[in-house]
Amino acid sequence: MAQLIEPRTLRGFRDYVPSLMLPRERVLETARRVYRSYGYAPIDTPALEYAEVLLGKGGDESDRLVYRFKDHGDRDVALRFDLTVPFARFSAQHVPQLGTPFKRYAMGPVWRGENTSAGRYREFWQCDFDTIGTTANAADVEVVLVISDLFTSLDLPKVEIRINNRMVLSGLLEQLGLAEKAVPLLRSLDKLPKIGAEKVTEEMIREAGVTADSATNVLKLAQMTGTNGEMLNQVESAFGTNPKVAEGVRRLREMLSVTTAVGVPEGRIKIDLSIARGLDYYTGTIYETFLNELPSIGSVCSGGRYDNLASLYTKQVLPGVGASLGVDRLLTAMEELKHPWLTGQSTPAEVLIIQFTADRLGDYHRAARDLRTAGIACEVYPEAKKPKAQFEYADRRGFKLALIAGPEEFEKGVWKVKNLAKREETAVGSEELVSTVQSALS
Amino acid sequence: MAQLIEPRTLRGFRDYVPSLMLPRERVLETARRVYRSYGYAPIDTPALEYAEVLLGKGGDESDRLVYRFKDHGDRDVALRFDLTVPFARFSAQHVPQLGTPFKRYAMGPVWRGENTSAGRYREFWQCDFDTIGTTANAADVEVVLVISDLFTSLDLPKVEIRINNRMVLSGLLEQLGLAEKAVPLLRSLDKLPKIGAEKVTEEMIREAGVTADSATNVLKLAQMTGTNGEMLNQVESAFGTNPKVAEGVRRLREMLSVTTAVGVPEGRIKIDLSIARGLDYYTGTIYETFLNELPSIGSVCSGGRYDNLASLYTKQVLPGVGASLGVDRLLTAMEELKHPWLTGQSTPAEVLIIQFTADRLGDYHRAARDLRTAGIACEVYPEAKKPKAQFEYADRRGFKLALIAGPEEFEKGVWKVKNLAKREETAVGSEELVSTVQSALS
Repeated sequence: MAQLIEPRTLRGFRDYVPSLMLPRERVLETARRVYRSYGYAPIDTPALEYAEVLLGKGGDESDRLVYRFKDHGDRDVALRFDLTVPFARFSAQHVPQLGTPFKRYAMGPVWRGENTSAGRYREFWQCDFDTIGTTANAADVEVVLVISDLFTSLDLPKVEIRINNRMVLSGLLEQLGLAEKAVPLLRSLDKLPKIGAEKVTEEMIREAGVTADSATNVLKLAQMTGTNGEMLNQVESAFGTNPKVAEGVRRLREMLSVTTAVGVPEGRIKIDLSIARGLDYYTGTIYETFLNELPSIGSVCSGGRYDNLASLYTKQVLPGVGASLGVDRLLTAMEELKHPWLTGQSTPAEVLIIQFTADRLGDYHRAARDLRTAGIACEVYPEAKKPKAQFEYADRRGFKLALIAGPEEFEKGVWKVKNLAKREETAVGSEELVSTVQSALS
Repeated sequence: MAQLIEPRTLRGFRDYVPSLMLPRERVLETARRVYRSYGYAPIDTPALEYAEVLLGKGGDESDRLVYRFKDHGDRDVALRFDLTVPFARFSAQHVPQLGTPFKRYAMGPVWRGENTSAGRYREFWQCDFDTIGTTANAADVEVVLVISDLFTSLDLPKVEIRINNRMVLSGLLEQLGLAEKAVPLLRSLDKLPKIGAEKVTEEMIREAGVTADSATNVLKLAQMTGTNGEMLNQVESAFGTNPKVAEGVRRLREMLSVTTAVGVPEGRIKIDLSIARGLDYYTGTIYETFLNELPSIGSVCSGGRYDNLASLYTKQVLPGVGASLGVDRLLTAMEELKHPWLTGQSTPAEVLIIQFTADRLGDYHRAARDLRTAGIACEVYPEAKKPKAQFEYADRRGFKLALIAGPEEFEKGVWKVKNLAKREETAVGSEELVSTVQSALS
């Protein structure tokens, strides 16, 4: 006999067993429902693309992490490392036919050969939504509404959506005479929550080549505190003559006013002038989302406005705005928070029909069909094993009810309905089976 | 300015635009709901695995098609070419903890560097379900019930689920003294619908080394006609003394009897002794599913029973049974059949709120929120463009209703509800907006 192959996954990759996959499906299904409720339409792009399409978009560091190889036709190909770059390519190719504004969502795995010691996965799921083809602030406002609805629907209402606008930051830097250093300064600023103010100051001096005074000034502005209204008033009175600052403030104000009108819970949206996102392509609104009970895990839904998504592939100018839900980070957070969706249950069905006697398989499946027709998922145990073994299976998987009928019950026309948690059993007539199960589960 | 990169996908790969992706999501969602209703639980495995885990499982031909390369750590890795081999690896690794019977479904893309001239994709979606850890025929019977429910739910009721049992075929070959030639004979037989009886006979003689008489005998049995009952009776009376034939016939009979009891539509299940599936690992029941209105596209849902799924990775014996829905082939068929799910619509929302005046964005979003709360997906147009442009957008995307309110309507407290297909417009009070939209859409 041949030697056994060790069953294992690659480092940084993982299997989803049912108790983890059921919550993942619920998260994705929730995001899908929320995105769709705003009119975002689904698209999908291939996992594999020409390397030239994917590379050189996120900087050298990100290129180094890309899974890249030669295919059967000796083409230079690579696995996508995010859903944004393929969407840029998609947009250049299809948006001329599809028309603008174009609203899409996309969900799927992406691959990065990251250092796994930081607890990072090399395959992880993203869940993006974007509106492209418009510069209107209405699209930016909607992104906040979507994020807010999303976390309400995910049963994670305690979130803070931090917003900023790069126009405000750029305008401030202009006013401080630091416009030319904007890119490295914002890249350093983005590291504030990770490395702290002192190290950011040092990096600004070292990498952007600014004076210590300038670095301190930038940080002071970025760390401004107060209510949303107070902060915007302060910025406006100090720098409002700068047209970028004025437009950024106007956009943030409109966002606050509409979200208040729509009833986004008080305190859920917070202006934070320090968030900049490391990515150079953001030009307007910036979004990050933190779980109030677990801020240390970082932003679980982030995004922003960009001037021109697809400029590498087309001359058509495609401005847009959107955000991305980090599904695997969110699931990790939900596990740590003992979120009610992580029940440990490993079956999607709530009812197990015990196979008491094999010659009644048709009857068991008829009862199962009636339950399914009423929208109740149920499983027929595949073997006529001893009921004890079948009950143990039911407990292990997390079924709520077991239905039992042997020769005696069939003769009387009844079913025994057993509540597995309470260990209680009642007998009901066959014609009441569906309604009994329905009320036992509700 | 740098030269533009041509926006294109790799040969054999494709983008899903919304008008194709909406039906794909509906197909996957339907399969998910049906699989779950029987208690199959979701799992997922990585796209990328150690090459040794994936290779050598489907024969040389299939190995040649695998995307294989060295990763950053110089590991020999490959992209999965189906969902079965990763499931075998998964089972060896996790089933000792998860316990048996273990019922799972999995959905995702797989990759094969196929010849694309045959209209094949190199990336395509599969959607599998299996029960492992039991040899009980109840699990085999359930597979037919799932397939039948699945196609009813897919609004494709005109299907023929062809079933066979390899035990019958093997027993017949034993009785004909051809037991040792079973593998090549069945592999040739599997090609019957593609290459016809004459070429199959030739191949049997050439590849399996049997006589012309033997080849003719095998084909005659395989092509037996009659009702399901007649065929089983014929096989039993001629070869029923062979224990394999007897057991195969018993299992097929039970399958027919239970499916009849459960009410699977008459004529949907057909015994076909010629179907064998090319794959060597099937040992019992075989399933293929044909669309009566488009049989030429081939089987859209196929599977079977296997004795030992994970024998390459573990000594634990894991028999099982399951089937796989070919999502991309099915979508191609649905397009050809002008299936009602392929509407050409490219928005998941049915209602577009016209942005008549930008300063009422909060009001538009409040109305949108009320509709969403009632379960109605709706989009707020992002710019206050001329209504004509917004209506054109609505038509292009396939919205059903447009809602219009300008200064005059806001003053009166009314909304105009426009049926876009009928070009009819009515005005309703704000408080009736949700109910009016609900009844207009129902």
